[in-house]
Amino acid sequence: MLQCTCLKFDAPEHDPQGPDATGLRALRGVESGLMKPVRIVLRESCLVSDPACLVNPPVRILLGPGPSDIPPRVLSALARPTVGHLDPYYLLLMDDLRGKLQTLMRTKNEMTLAISATGSAGMEATVVNLIEPGDAMLVCVNGVFGGRMADVAGRAGADVATVERPWGEVFSPADIKAALAKHRPKVVGIVMAETSTGAWQPLEEISELVHDAGALLLVDAVTSLGGVPVEVDAWNIDALYSGSQKCLSCPPGLSPVSFSSAAMKVILGRKTKVQSWYLDVSMLANYWGTERVYHHTAPINMTYALHESVRIILEEGLDACFARHALNHRALKAGLAALSIEYSAQAGHALPMLNAVKIPAGVDDARFRRDLLNRFGIEIGGGLGAFKGQVWRIGLMGHASRSKNVLLFLAATEQLLQEQGVSFAHGASIAAANEIYAAAG
Amino acid sequence: MLQCTCLKFDAPEHDPQGPDATGLRALRGVESGLMKPVRIVLRESCLVSDPACLVNPPVRILLGPGPSDIPPRVLSALARPTVGHLDPYYLLLMDDLRGKLQTLMRTKNEMTLAISATGSAGMEATVVNLIEPGDAMLVCVNGVFGGRMADVAGRAGADVATVERPWGEVFSPADIKAALAKHRPKVVGIVMAETSTGAWQPLEEISELVHDAGALLLVDAVTSLGGVPVEVDAWNIDALYSGSQKCLSCPPGLSPVSFSSAAMKVILGRKTKVQSWYLDVSMLANYWGTERVYHHTAPINMTYALHESVRIILEEGLDACFARHALNHRALKAGLAALSIEYSAQAGHALPMLNAVKIPAGVDDARFRRDLLNRFGIEIGGGLGAFKGQVWRIGLMGHASRSKNVLLFLAATEQLLQEQGVSFAHGASIAAANEIYAAAG
Repeated sequence: MLQCTCLKFDAPEHDPQGPDATGLRALRGVESGLMKPVRIVLRESCLVSDPACLVNPPVRILLGPGPSDIPPRVLSALARPTVGHLDPYYLLLMDDLRGKLQTLMRTKNEMTLAISATGSAGMEATVVNLIEPGDAMLVCVNGVFGGRMADVAGRAGADVATVERPWGEVFSPADIKAALAKHRPKVVGIVMAETSTGAWQPLEEISELVHDAGALLLVDAVTSLGGVPVEVDAWNIDALYSGSQKCLSCPPGLSPVSFSSAAMKVILGRKTKVQSWYLDVSMLANYWGTERVYHHTAPINMTYALHESVRIILEEGLDACFARHALNHRALKAGLAALSIEYSAQAGHALPMLNAVKIPAGVDDARFRRDLLNRFGIEIGGGLGAFKGQVWRIGLMGHASRSKNVLLFLAATEQLLQEQGVSFAHGASIAAANEIYAAAG
Repeated sequence: MLQCTCLKFDAPEHDPQGPDATGLRALRGVESGLMKPVRIVLRESCLVSDPACLVNPPVRILLGPGPSDIPPRVLSALARPTVGHLDPYYLLLMDDLRGKLQTLMRTKNEMTLAISATGSAGMEATVVNLIEPGDAMLVCVNGVFGGRMADVAGRAGADVATVERPWGEVFSPADIKAALAKHRPKVVGIVMAETSTGAWQPLEEISELVHDAGALLLVDAVTSLGGVPVEVDAWNIDALYSGSQKCLSCPPGLSPVSFSSAAMKVILGRKTKVQSWYLDVSMLANYWGTERVYHHTAPINMTYALHESVRIILEEGLDACFARHALNHRALKAGLAALSIEYSAQAGHALPMLNAVKIPAGVDDARFRRDLLNRFGIEIGGGLGAFKGQVWRIGLMGHASRSKNVLLFLAATEQLLQEQGVSFAHGASIAAANEIYAAAG
């Protein structure tokens, strides 16, 4: 008889602001008297007994692979009054959002919009619109998301070939050149910021090779957009997708995408229907364009939030925003180096917003991350796929890329590593990080 | 040279609360002096000159086909602090949401969850998971959404047959029986609440016939769920999808779905991969189930909102909620009858939450709806597809199904019809509606 157990969010001792729900504990039921105190949450009994607990999320510091911390302005925007998807106001907002996304992506592409689902649907949208059954597609796989793209392409009926690099490495132009010659693809898909490994893939030379071979370039910019330069026009990217919840610091739920005129020519010349009705860009174009033909009911409030989040980035300025991401990354990296913690990405190709690092020998991964979450409210990511149990993924994305987060994370890490018996020069990570900040002025 | 034009939201004279932005006007630019006053919004120039306009949506009364009015509690829930998609808190919330959706749908189906996209993606999710290329599917078409389902099924590779009824009518068991015998489908798709015509399709007898023929029953409950009884288990529905933005009164962006164990057996026994990676229920089951395997980054804040919106419905009680929808529908219908405005749905089959009515002869549709929006802040829907220019679609969905909305809509309609020269007994619609409310006590 599990009854009357209640979720209790304890105030962390580190937070003078009072209760912010960083600890989850299930307490003994007061009525039944049948339960023992437990540290693990007893789900069903909690839900029965105290629904109020459920409507008060804990306040986290989101330093994982996304979602990232959301600025208060964006949360406020989410809660604005809902209007209809054909309201004159909403149509204006869509137009303005498109303009802002174009600025963010540095493109003049008319077909720049937000898909009404998360980044993975953006991946699917770009693939299924460009691919017809039997089309050859080359996918570059050096982590989870390249692998996912190959899966998506196969489901779309593509004749999929992959070119692979070990996880953490990036592709050289030579890798791509050989694969292009061998497979003669219609579309080449590549991940710019591989969130599973923290590797930062350069695109300019590869784009030239892809276009010289007469193929279209499809780029995953889920984690890169808003954190490092993404030059859709200058790099001649034909289809690009991102996600709202990484460096844009908007809650998850939307996927900004852009299609070049070359891509749209291919799409409008298809012999078969796009397999997904929901993601069919030719129909979405009629809603986002001047015709305003109803397609599906747009996610109004999420659009408010995305608009506000991109507005904040453009207010800061793209270059300043990228410089901030770079600086906080360097400070974190210096701090981690002082703790002998190494990056898993190839030297010179570590992403600033997604720091994938090797878990120090002897450290209990699950305990470390649980303590970080429960005692400091800090979320970081564990390893995915081949890197499960091997790496931590520390996000410094968008609004979360701030010196106070870098310093708190390093200080908390020192405390937790010390508790787990790891030897290092105490305080060294803070000293190293602050040296970077001091030098930056 | 369009410059310096600004969006101005005028306060409606009917609203003593002050400016709530129900009128959109573009005013002459103060600097350029080159423009004439216009009533139509000049988009680009406005966006350049006064971005502040864009972050303040007008306050509407949403009596269209969705989105519906959102209760303040749901908007507040949207703005709660974002947590990660594997946060212990979020996993609890998902479990609780599933339980609440099961209660709402009156089902014990384990595979009851919210798809991370709008209702149209829910349609696609149910179809693409059940259909393998070449499978026979029978789709019942008596409006836009049945037609859409046939399109989606064709894109999924189904051998699609349709059975049709004129718009506004519903299907009889005899219609379906004949089609079942002729086409021998694996899946039968039918729309319970056809939002384009306002027709309310009974399902119980049809479900028996479908199962007697060895087929699975797939039901569109986008507009019906939360407004009229939807009995997933009692009616033996195998796959059902809905949308967050209709009678649930949550912003658009999520699609509650449910799959029966028979449907899951078919899905888990597929010979081919589901064509959509994003909507693949076997993978979603690993995230919504106890394994908690990362699939895509869940739309955290939209989940907060959906959870709160379903919580509100269950607090009211399902039967009370349905009775409220029925009463307000009867009052509206009586009021419209007093204005000689007729329903487009077959007699006895008009939906309570979506009142599709014939536009009175001689009335300028666009002018009426524009005046209603600009002067009263009330949105209703125009006709879709074959009903374009022929009907108005008046939604009384969820939070919007309230007597004050019925009375204001009728009173405003009288004013606007009078201006357009329509003859009727002035005040008669209000008298008729209030008679219904009085009789209900």
